[in-house]
Amino acid sequence: MEIACLDLEGVLVPEIWIGVAEHTGIDALRATTRDVPDYDALMRQRLGLLERHGLGVERIQQVIAEMAPLAGAKDFLDWLKARFQVIILSDTFYEFSHPLMRQLDFPALFCHRLEISGGRITGYRLRQKDPKRQSVKALHQLNFRVIAAGDSYNDTSMLEEADAGILFKAPAAVAEAFPQYPSVDSFDELKQQFRLASEREISQEES
Amino acid sequence: MEIACLDLEGVLVPEIWIGVAEHTGIDALRATTRDVPDYDALMRQRLGLLERHGLGVERIQQVIAEMAPLAGAKDFLDWLKARFQVIILSDTFYEFSHPLMRQLDFPALFCHRLEISGGRITGYRLRQKDPKRQSVKALHQLNFRVIAAGDSYNDTSMLEEADAGILFKAPAAVAEAFPQYPSVDSFDELKQQFRLASEREISQEES
Repeated sequence: MEIACLDLEGVLVPEIWIGVAEHTGIDALRATTRDVPDYDALMRQRLGLLERHGLGVERIQQVIAEMAPLAGAKDFLDWLKARFQVIILSDTFYEFSHPLMRQLDFPALFCHRLEISGGRITGYRLRQKDPKRQSVKALHQLNFRVIAAGDSYNDTSMLEEADAGILFKAPAAVAEAFPQYPSVDSFDELKQQFRLASEREISQEES
Repeated sequence: MEIACLDLEGVLVPEIWIGVAEHTGIDALRATTRDVPDYDALMRQRLGLLERHGLGVERIQQVIAEMAPLAGAKDFLDWLKARFQVIILSDTFYEFSHPLMRQLDFPALFCHRLEISGGRITGYRLRQKDPKRQSVKALHQLNFRVIAAGDSYNDTSMLEEADAGILFKAPAAVAEAFPQYPSVDSFDELKQQFRLASEREISQEES
């Protein structure tokens, strides 16, 4: 019995902070952990920028609602849901992802939450440490086998914990650092990798 | 951060074995654990009946595809998915539920699997013992709060483990045996119970 775990940003939808930077013209929102390695410092910088530009949660959600899932993502997700139970594992926040998840018909999503007070984003709350790995572990405890796909460093603990891992649209540096995972760039190839991983699971079960 | 866990049969879709009995005219398939208390004996009886009537997995899936979700179930589920992460916890089998899950756009479902050989249903495989309770426990480990709704005795371990439990379309005997759970019969009332349970969670968090 198999579950497909998918990263969200870069796999099904664009990078949300980049999109917000583009739609609002606030270039400083493009900073990532490559620029500010401390995640908490980076988040405080981002939330400070939103505050300074008077962007409350409602306005940000309007901006994000103008974004769209990646081309082909909805069709791929519909294909996947007909064959596997699908859970999206992401480090985004429910309040940000909501307008994009709506366009994907709200598949189950495990991520984090913002702290909101009077429409202002005052902070954020991570659900737990290493949440993608913990989620795969929890699914293993329920006797599911897990096939996982993601694009980035923060997905590799999920890929490692899963029974099969796939890199999708991964930067070259990530694909090179993790040669143990097949690395593909189109949804057709990703379907094929899910098929292959699933057949391997079945043949392992039978042997 | 909240997850809604829903039972499937009796909540979103009709009882599948009853539907198969009606659509095939095989009355003996109406037997439940009330008639044959040993679940394994009951399942072997059911699978024996399918075998004797020459009903392979493909034919059964055609029969189940003629069934439909309960009136209002799809709208309710769409409402719920926009407000909570939804996971269906069921004791059915993926091969049986598939034609009905398709009509619900395949929400994430944790259930069991049949053993199929050459199109014949040769057995079944339960994913684990007390799967509904175990699933809620796993979600708790991921720091989710869980609001659960079901209709029957096999849901009560899920309701007990959850942070809030709701009985939906429960037989009078179940509602009487578990007076600690609100018991409602319409999707509008069920929405209201989810709203109330969610507000209680939020006020507990803040206090």
